[in-house]
Amino acid sequence: MTGLLASTIESIRPLDSQAMAAARARHNLLTKPRGSLGRLEELAVQLAGIQGKPVPALKRKVIITMAGDHGVAVEGVSLFPQEVTAQMVSNFIGDGAGVNVIARQVGARVIVVDMGVAADLAVAPQLLSRKIAAGTRNISLEPAMSKAEAVRAIETGIEVVAEEVNKGLDIVGTGDMGIGNTTASSAICAVMTGEPVDKVTGGGTGIGEKQLAHKIDVINRALAVNKPDPAQPLDVLTKVGGFEIGGLAGVMLGAAAHHIPVVVDGFISGAAALIAVALSPEVKNYMIAAHASVEPGHQLMLRYLGLEPLLALGMRLGEGTGAALGIFLAEVSARVLAEMSTFTEAGVSREDGMNQWDS
Amino acid sequence: MTGLLASTIESIRPLDSQAMAAARARHNLLTKPRGSLGRLEELAVQLAGIQGKPVPALKRKVIITMAGDHGVAVEGVSLFPQEVTAQMVSNFIGDGAGVNVIARQVGARVIVVDMGVAADLAVAPQLLSRKIAAGTRNISLEPAMSKAEAVRAIETGIEVVAEEVNKGLDIVGTGDMGIGNTTASSAICAVMTGEPVDKVTGGGTGIGEKQLAHKIDVINRALAVNKPDPAQPLDVLTKVGGFEIGGLAGVMLGAAAHHIPVVVDGFISGAAALIAVALSPEVKNYMIAAHASVEPGHQLMLRYLGLEPLLALGMRLGEGTGAALGIFLAEVSARVLAEMSTFTEAGVSREDGMNQWDS
Repeated sequence: MTGLLASTIESIRPLDSQAMAAARARHNLLTKPRGSLGRLEELAVQLAGIQGKPVPALKRKVIITMAGDHGVAVEGVSLFPQEVTAQMVSNFIGDGAGVNVIARQVGARVIVVDMGVAADLAVAPQLLSRKIAAGTRNISLEPAMSKAEAVRAIETGIEVVAEEVNKGLDIVGTGDMGIGNTTASSAICAVMTGEPVDKVTGGGTGIGEKQLAHKIDVINRALAVNKPDPAQPLDVLTKVGGFEIGGLAGVMLGAAAHHIPVVVDGFISGAAALIAVALSPEVKNYMIAAHASVEPGHQLMLRYLGLEPLLALGMRLGEGTGAALGIFLAEVSARVLAEMSTFTEAGVSREDGMNQWDS
Repeated sequence: MTGLLASTIESIRPLDSQAMAAARARHNLLTKPRGSLGRLEELAVQLAGIQGKPVPALKRKVIITMAGDHGVAVEGVSLFPQEVTAQMVSNFIGDGAGVNVIARQVGARVIVVDMGVAADLAVAPQLLSRKIAAGTRNISLEPAMSKAEAVRAIETGIEVVAEEVNKGLDIVGTGDMGIGNTTASSAICAVMTGEPVDKVTGGGTGIGEKQLAHKIDVINRALAVNKPDPAQPLDVLTKVGGFEIGGLAGVMLGAAAHHIPVVVDGFISGAAALIAVALSPEVKNYMIAAHASVEPGHQLMLRYLGLEPLLALGMRLGEGTGAALGIFLAEVSARVLAEMSTFTEAGVSREDGMNQWDS
């Protein structure tokens, strides 16, 4: 590998253990029983390590929602027609989709990126046009894209997040839109985790049992035809991936390179995370798993990655809706660490056997 | 029963099924696969039923944090000395506690109520002084309070929530503070659910194994001495309860009577919920369980009540910290229902076999 992808991977560093230790120490001075905020405490410590600050702050919040079409949609793997990808991009721009509503409530901006929608989209200031091609090819017959396109997709994600870093960014969430992209994600999941296709394939937008059996068959054909190599993440992305999936993997790599925490949405973002972590295992430490999707492959992915989801609300919408909720919890965790009084400040007695001055 | 408690119970109505049906129908018109927002969809439907509006709105949000001391604290059941209850009330008023930080982020006001702190508290505008007595009596030796005090505690909660309703209230969360109150809550849980004491008793603020065995022994003595009658919730509150627990049960009853959703915090609020639901089973439908505490009795309580927690973040702080997060999710669910575009509005194609005009 050369170019932006290689240099980005090269620049990803381990978390700052000193900042993490300082965050942990501060948590133990705050007016609460030790550890009583559970995962919110761990989350703040992770954020400290990512930002390299004992008291992390999350002010500038962005959700990057990437859209792309999938040639495999012609196989009838989704309940919705392909045109819905482009229509939903318009909906994102019109501020009417689920991710827009939740992002508004958590104070995050939504950036929509056309990574490969199979339609000409109207120009809009909130839409970044970064189309690699007008949809991938049909993975049940041939590779989704060329290797050059796969690299271009990832590097586009790296560039998009870098633009946001230049404007000022404290945390980023990932989101996706693409009719057929649970099919690609299940294929990636099966290859990367080694699990059988029928264990990692679900209803997506809500198909019935018969259509699900067909979807599993399509994915099995895609793997048989393309033979993606699990040891080579770029090969997997090339053969059974998607442009938005590659782009999101790039967002994750780019975020890590810039010391920005990245909140990973659901199943499609999880597939991107598998690619990103295979390219650079350190990226995992920069990831926050927002929620457990109802897609059966998602939990397996997260377990494989060693990520524990914050929420389990039975969601399966994508778009970054789960990431928006995860961003909220990350901000809560940071604010708790920053804003709660210490025992000394509040004049509160400590646990038996500890005076106010220890630790 | 007579008086305010009886009239409040009398005025609690079933949820509005027409509003719920209308909310469900609207959900199916929004630009997302049916059911894809999972529990956020169910939550909005519940809110519609509670408020009696097809599109519920949650603008005015309050957390009522009730504090009280427990005579049983002299038995050494907590890691912290009793004085911490009063000190933490000052911390709430100074805006420095966990609940203050999280409530600020979700836009909820925190109202602190002295239900029975064993100290004279300084007057402050944010503190409601409703002291029933300066702490309960030691339940390992005698009843916690008189029956008249138990009724007074519940009615105080009803009055406090009514004052907020008069000012304007759309959703309320519960919170607690009281050294020793996991001991009382475990006792209530054991009596009401019929589970053995050792199964429903945990570390509270973080005691070790030896102190936990002692705590279980203290609770077993409390039940043996007092013989609370599980068929009579007022008897249970009287014998092994707490003033803040009674008050919170009143908040729940009062909220239901005024068609206000009530977000139930953790273990202590769960004990109050057991009392409230035993007094009026309909109240359960007005409750939203915020999170699963790490206290082992909490999950049993919730299962007994038929409530499923929204979050599982390993929290065990109380104060209303979990309720604040639950209020956020409730608001997300309401905003999604209110603000997302419909398929028709956004010009998005529907699932195969459905046109834009059905349902």
